[in-house]
Amino acid sequence: MVITFLSDFGLQDDFVGTCHGVIKTIAPDTEIIDITHGVPPQQVLQGALVLCNTLPYMPVGVHLAVVDPGVGSHRRPLALRTGDGRFLVGPDNGLLLPAADTVGGVEEAHELANPKYALDSVSRTFHGRDLFSPAAAHLSLGVAIGDLGPPIDPQALVRLDVPAPELGQNRIRATVLYVDHFGNMQLNLKRSHLEEVGVLPGVTVELELALERFYATAARTFADARAGDIILYEDSYGNIAIAISGGSAAALFGSGADDEVRIHLRTP
Amino acid sequence: MVITFLSDFGLQDDFVGTCHGVIKTIAPDTEIIDITHGVPPQQVLQGALVLCNTLPYMPVGVHLAVVDPGVGSHRRPLALRTGDGRFLVGPDNGLLLPAADTVGGVEEAHELANPKYALDSVSRTFHGRDLFSPAAAHLSLGVAIGDLGPPIDPQALVRLDVPAPELGQNRIRATVLYVDHFGNMQLNLKRSHLEEVGVLPGVTVELELALERFYATAARTFADARAGDIILYEDSYGNIAIAISGGSAAALFGSGADDEVRIHLRTP
Amino acid sequence: MVITFLSDFGLQDDFVGTCHGVIKTIAPDTEIIDITHGVPPQQVLQGALVLCNTLPYMPVGVHLAVVDPGVGSHRRPLALRTGDGRFLVGPDNGLLLPAADTVGGVEEAHELANPKYALDSVSRTFHGRDLFSPAAAHLSLGVAIGDLGPPIDPQALVRLDVPAPELGQNRIRATVLYVDHFGNMQLNLKRSHLEEVGVLPGVTVELELALERFYATAARTFADARAGDIILYEDSYGNIAIAISGGSAAALFGSGADDEVRIHLRTP
Repeated sequence: MVITFLSDFGLQDDFVGTCHGVIKTIAPDTEIIDITHGVPPQQVLQGALVLCNTLPYMPVGVHLAVVDPGVGSHRRPLALRTGDGRFLVGPDNGLLLPAADTVGGVEEAHELANPKYALDSVSRTFHGRDLFSPAAAHLSLGVAIGDLGPPIDPQALVRLDVPAPELGQNRIRATVLYVDHFGNMQLNLKRSHLEEVGVLPGVTVELELALERFYATAARTFADARAGDIILYEDSYGNIAIAISGGSAAALFGSGADDEVRIHLRTP
Repeated sequence: MVITFLSDFGLQDDFVGTCHGVIKTIAPDTEIIDITHGVPPQQVLQGALVLCNTLPYMPVGVHLAVVDPGVGSHRRPLALRTGDGRFLVGPDNGLLLPAADTVGGVEEAHELANPKYALDSVSRTFHGRDLFSPAAAHLSLGVAIGDLGPPIDPQALVRLDVPAPELGQNRIRATVLYVDHFGNMQLNLKRSHLEEVGVLPGVTVELELALERFYATAARTFADARAGDIILYEDSYGNIAIAISGGSAAALFGSGADDEVRIHLRTP
Repeated sequence: MVITFLSDFGLQDDFVGTCHGVIKTIAPDTEIIDITHGVPPQQVLQGALVLCNTLPYMPVGVHLAVVDPGVGSHRRPLALRTGDGRFLVGPDNGLLLPAADTVGGVEEAHELANPKYALDSVSRTFHGRDLFSPAAAHLSLGVAIGDLGPPIDPQALVRLDVPAPELGQNRIRATVLYVDHFGNMQLNLKRSHLEEVGVLPGVTVELELALERFYATAARTFADARAGDIILYEDSYGNIAIAISGGSAAALFGSGADDEVRIHLRTP
């Protein structure tokens, strides 16, 4: 079974490579797909959203995810089995659940507690290497999830609060969830939210960010906009995002994750 | 057949990992070699030059390349077959042709138009995932290129203008094509251009960049220079580059791709 | 046999991808594990320490490492065989030896001198591609190390000076060896050094960096500290490091590799 791997480790250091080494030492024939290691450090919500967006594009396998500010504390290390037969491995801090919900939900949850499936010495600060990678490797070889440790009631798993948008008369209050490499800013909105207040493709709105206001146009694609135009569009994962055609919206707005955005529909 | 993959997606986000997931879902046994995903965002010419430099070092396979500012517009998605039996997949914006020319030229070109070899839902903004990766995966499994869509006349493909140097009496006007991680600045020059105006190893020249002048020495290798010396050398892909021994030329000059450089031969 | 690969090439350019291409052209079935390519450019000591930390977590194989400021000079290209049956490939500048020492020491050393196991044309500036990757690929296929070139006396190999800490009455003078992606600063200290001067978990010390003083607490793990606390802890490779719970110590201190840190034990 293939292993996919997402983390906030970055690629500057050896953390990702060391986890690969641990996995390939235990399971030489298992292939690893790196989803990304560029989740902003310790941002569990952003990691959860990226995992949730991407999991449907991954082969069914073992899905290792580590964004783990609570390493060394009492947060539990987990393995989950989902309704469609995937396994998810990572910390019990909410990182895994939005993704699990998109692939059939959690059928079974176990705490990683069996030292047979961890490295001989488990450090206090690098459970990715010592605990999560070995568990993922053993699952990929067919070890039964129940052998990894005692069951946990799926209802008892830690869940994240995902910010909800507020929809009013002619306006929406939204939150930036994620800023990508191109500077596009993903919001906590779906197309249905825009439609609900009447923002259809071609409509011009006012965006209010950090006390400043900008005009933006709801567009189907970058190709509908002129260079420099600010657009609201549905991104490739079905989320509404703010972009600048040919530029970086995040750089222009000096804006990042968790920032509030107000969208005002201009009434004639 | 192996797939190689070059893009401007960066590694901060999930774009590359998601394409890997799509490929491995379709073609679990196909291996993927990431050439680089650090092409500066939307710089088609720089992507084309990197692909052209590196393709001769890659196994014969399917070569996926995505630097695609025109995604969502009417630019065509392509698959090409080259004279030496490679397949190239990417947008019809000139990205693929310099590389194709180095491996036997384009024997056959097809538009990606058969929905059987794309994902079920093709977004407007992420053809790398929805169109190009599936096409590359199917080609790696042996699907005939002609099954991907209708043929295109190779003469009708979009070509890039690569800037040409100007050679004068005792001087050259060149352009910076690419700046690498070490700050070395690749020019649109070959050794033959330098030789033509008499710049041989050991000769000192004046470089003029951004209204400032610097002395530089034509050198065979970094080891010929003292720390801090500015050198002109033939890089490992056969292009002339500007470097500083033990430092970053791009940082010193505050210079980047597309900048003009004048080289003056000092006459005795 | 698997190949692991560490370098200072970064992932912005094609250097790493090109080496992968060369390896997979020679040895299509050999798998490659990238340990990291984020070693700071040309910092041989930092590369050596990362290789040394991580090698015990890698499968036994061929371990390619390239941090090579002397490329093009007379430094020798090497292949080593270690006591536990691993092969190390890289420049003779000290990069490989700390790692080799942790896996049984150097049993056999050879200079890479046989053109049969290099690319046809060896550039002056990219031995990673032209010399080291081909040698690693051929070793992974079972070519005998003695076929790569003449033997070298292991005693004659270049060794690095690793800075040693100074331990005094109630104080330690240490050096920052490495700063990671999270801003944690690894020192040239082991837990035994701290214990020797009485710094046990829970003890508060003064850190002196760059003429400023800060309080820090010796802690077992991040979870023992409140957000914003400066801690001294044993990292996951057994080295003492400085961190800030929930922040970047390197950013706060404006500090990096090679900086001196003085630790003063506060006496009651």
